[in-house]
Amino acid sequence: MPLYTSISRTRHLVSPFHSSCRSAIRSFSATPLAMTNPPAASSSSSSSSSSRKPVLTRDTINPAVLEVEYAVRGELALKADKYHQLLTSPLAPGQAANDLPFDKVVTANIGNPQQKGLDQVPITFWRQVISLLEYPDLFKNHLDIIRQIYPEDAIERAKEMHEEIGSTGAYTHSKGILGIRKRVAKFIEERDGYPADPESIYLTAGASAGVSSILNIALQKGDGCLIPIPQYPLYTATLAFVSAVPLPYYLQEIEGWSMSHKVLIESIKQAKKAGTPVKALVIINPGNPTGACLSEEAIREVVQLCYDERILLLADEVYQSNIFDHEGKPFISFKKVLRSMPEEVANSVELVSFHSISKGMSGECGRRGGYFECVNISDEVMEQIYKMASVNLCPPVSGQIGVDLLVHPPKPGQPSYPLYEQETSLTLNNLRERSQYMFEKFNSLPGMTCQPADGAMYLFPQIDMPPKAVEAAKKQGKEPDVMYALELLDATGICAVAGSGFGQEDGTYHLRVTALCPGVEDYVSKIEKFHHDFIAKYT
Amino acid sequence: MPLYTSISRTRHLVSPFHSSCRSAIRSFSATPLAMTNPPAASSSSSSSSSSRKPVLTRDTINPAVLEVEYAVRGELALKADKYHQLLTSPLAPGQAANDLPFDKVVTANIGNPQQKGLDQVPITFWRQVISLLEYPDLFKNHLDIIRQIYPEDAIERAKEMHEEIGSTGAYTHSKGILGIRKRVAKFIEERDGYPADPESIYLTAGASAGVSSILNIALQKGDGCLIPIPQYPLYTATLAFVSAVPLPYYLQEIEGWSMSHKVLIESIKQAKKAGTPVKALVIINPGNPTGACLSEEAIREVVQLCYDERILLLADEVYQSNIFDHEGKPFISFKKVLRSMPEEVANSVELVSFHSISKGMSGECGRRGGYFECVNISDEVMEQIYKMASVNLCPPVSGQIGVDLLVHPPKPGQPSYPLYEQETSLTLNNLRERSQYMFEKFNSLPGMTCQPADGAMYLFPQIDMPPKAVEAAKKQGKEPDVMYALELLDATGICAVAGSGFGQEDGTYHLRVTALCPGVEDYVSKIEKFHHDFIAKYT
Repeated sequence: MPLYTSISRTRHLVSPFHSSCRSAIRSFSATPLAMTNPPAASSSSSSSSSSRKPVLTRDTINPAVLEVEYAVRGELALKADKYHQLLTSPLAPGQAANDLPFDKVVTANIGNPQQKGLDQVPITFWRQVISLLEYPDLFKNHLDIIRQIYPEDAIERAKEMHEEIGSTGAYTHSKGILGIRKRVAKFIEERDGYPADPESIYLTAGASAGVSSILNIALQKGDGCLIPIPQYPLYTATLAFVSAVPLPYYLQEIEGWSMSHKVLIESIKQAKKAGTPVKALVIINPGNPTGACLSEEAIREVVQLCYDERILLLADEVYQSNIFDHEGKPFISFKKVLRSMPEEVANSVELVSFHSISKGMSGECGRRGGYFECVNISDEVMEQIYKMASVNLCPPVSGQIGVDLLVHPPKPGQPSYPLYEQETSLTLNNLRERSQYMFEKFNSLPGMTCQPADGAMYLFPQIDMPPKAVEAAKKQGKEPDVMYALELLDATGICAVAGSGFGQEDGTYHLRVTALCPGVEDYVSKIEKFHHDFIAKYT
Repeated sequence: MPLYTSISRTRHLVSPFHSSCRSAIRSFSATPLAMTNPPAASSSSSSSSSSRKPVLTRDTINPAVLEVEYAVRGELALKADKYHQLLTSPLAPGQAANDLPFDKVVTANIGNPQQKGLDQVPITFWRQVISLLEYPDLFKNHLDIIRQIYPEDAIERAKEMHEEIGSTGAYTHSKGILGIRKRVAKFIEERDGYPADPESIYLTAGASAGVSSILNIALQKGDGCLIPIPQYPLYTATLAFVSAVPLPYYLQEIEGWSMSHKVLIESIKQAKKAGTPVKALVIINPGNPTGACLSEEAIREVVQLCYDERILLLADEVYQSNIFDHEGKPFISFKKVLRSMPEEVANSVELVSFHSISKGMSGECGRRGGYFECVNISDEVMEQIYKMASVNLCPPVSGQIGVDLLVHPPKPGQPSYPLYEQETSLTLNNLRERSQYMFEKFNSLPGMTCQPADGAMYLFPQIDMPPKAVEAAKKQGKEPDVMYALELLDATGICAVAGSGFGQEDGTYHLRVTALCPGVEDYVSKIEKFHHDFIAKYT
């Protein structure tokens, strides 16, 4: 099994994101609308009425765009959406009821904790502060009334922040509001025990925007970028767009999806042999989709390697608070380990670390908030990063406020603390318990093995695919695990993403399932039943 | 004076955005922090302690990034920020008071209506609905209390939208929430009298994000893109990043910054002669920085030209509701004119039109909301646009809600209508009156001429620069209008952007001033006094 594969290897990575797509893109006739009774839209396709060739075609647009693979509109997502619509739309007169063998679609494919059907509720303190900031009249002119609803510390916090940032409708500094960046720096300092500089911190529209921005700036066409396999498909998508070369390094499934230093070195060697300069290394810790959390030792080895080989280190640390065993397998930041190393390493290895409000206990994906911290990046490059941030004007203020709430939560003794503690503990306990339950159940199934997750919000069980199933999938022109996921959806309404969406070693097959769904026993028993039937069908 | 200039012409376009920058990017020693008493950060520069060359330098990063010009950190913005800090920071013991000849910095450089110091207040109805959606507990569990504060229609609207979108913290469809896209389509239909398809509408994180996304997809390296001069510098910045060729067409100042069809044709001819394929045409209507509003006839000519020459039409229509004379010089959309033309044209000219919540009467810049509508774009390219939107997950939900409020305001007869009407009328009247006042005053000054604005939020007076001033600027290595803007700031605290930030005909000099500042008489009288002094100084 090759440890190193070329760019074509990662082409068919699909995305776990989003479930719906409407394909019909129609043009309309040039007849003005009678406003009282608009005619049905014509379904004639674009430019069919003209012999003129369109300016934009697949052949004329930016060719790098075609290289981007992000198959959100894959068969699975489309089907799940269709089923959901069937189950939730009222029947038209005379329309037959659907004959689906399930009564709801379970979206176990997206790390989107607050979506309908899941049970992670927003943190109350967050929403109280945000609602006050969005409508300051509440505390300016109706204080006595709102005191019946809002706790004192939420009101105080909103007043302070309003004083600092003014209207949530104004552009901020392109790096984000300075006061918030100062509190992010304090958060990092308290987490790691090393100083952080607010001027090296950029607030972003979620971690994805930060990753995309840094990859677009750092990489030239043809530069190599090491990425874990399995990986979160944002990386391959963005690398394709910048025409950089993804250099896969395989995680060691049998050792709990750990990172092998040997494998990493071998990947670098292979890239060099192929003439690809190794410019950057992406690490997702805790892992997505693996849930594996790196040890201090492993992190130290990576940092040293980046020093020795002159590699830019990109640490995707968005799951840093989704940790199940803070004592045994804690989250340790790359920044902390880097700063603890000999001065020559500590002050030279270039690191960008990404964080987000979309994951963790907040799960505020829709708000689009996050930050990245640059460490040891040269001043001349920091200037370029700032310039590019400026072109985008500023990150969404609501996301910036989310970052503030993330790094500056209620403290013990404050009125909002007990509820905050209760809500965040419940979220973490749910994740931990569901993850553990699913891990045990999946391992008890014949033909399925599953590594335990140390954190994040997914499990990534391996399916021992029967040869007949592989054969059948081949005939359908599908990856076997994609066929598995489609049949799972058809039989149970459960939507989970095939491992080929994240990359996996040749000949292995996986499924990524979120640990976000309530009613986990019911949900897992459906997977169990399906799995038995699937194995029986293809044996 | 050449009508057509090469890419180098647009290199020194600077941006009017943002006023502050902190240049110090420091690395820190690897000494752990004593948490109780953190040591001051070391100011040693990055990698100074190591002989190891950094991975990222100007020479190794994406070279297209270096081509992007967006001089937000120009001398003017830095100085304005410094002055602001001097004027607002409390004096340290023993520190001498500043000796600045003004007591506040007036930010007339950014179209940011809700920033501190300006007087455009958020639309109350918007903020009421948003605050309820951010904390639905308010209407779910405290309805009796909040009825003392919120009008019934705001509560109803929030309930309906909550039902539709669920938590504001969840990812939405990558195109944006379907219900909102349907209402955008309805808004466009009612505006134009022609159908619009929700599936051809993408909600975005402001118009800039939409423009950037479309330019990144549509253009290949070396493709030519016609842009107006003067222009909003987002366009040159983005074209530089995608290595496309900006093809300037000069607006006719003497005719109120109108678009000359002849000039446009000449630009195309010149581009063809130079071997540059003319792929796209950007039009900003109403214009930024000019405020000029295109006539139906002018729009029709442009559309026909795009048909004849096979050019993609990009219509930046973000100022469509900033219109001073709805009868005499109304806003007419490109979509409307396009659809009114013969079927062959109406159904084939490819148009993308951009809109935003940042301008208009809402001015909600920080929320990052907008949309674009694709017309006559082929299905295969629509698929690529969708794929790329998916990589970015979804636009900020708060911005999406803003778009909904933009296209679906309170109606006459509803409780919130009178206040809504009062607030939006005030904003528009302020803009109109200030624009008119400034126009008259600027024209009464010797050595200054100013075209009236039909809309948008700026004036762009021309300065008849004394030869001695040109000489002096040359000695300072500055553009003469940049020197003018700097001296204006030094003398008055007024921060306005030099015309060279937007592009202008060789040998002409301008200033872009927003019409957003309260106390316009005082503010203009300061400019007048300065201008007299400046002319006297250099004559």
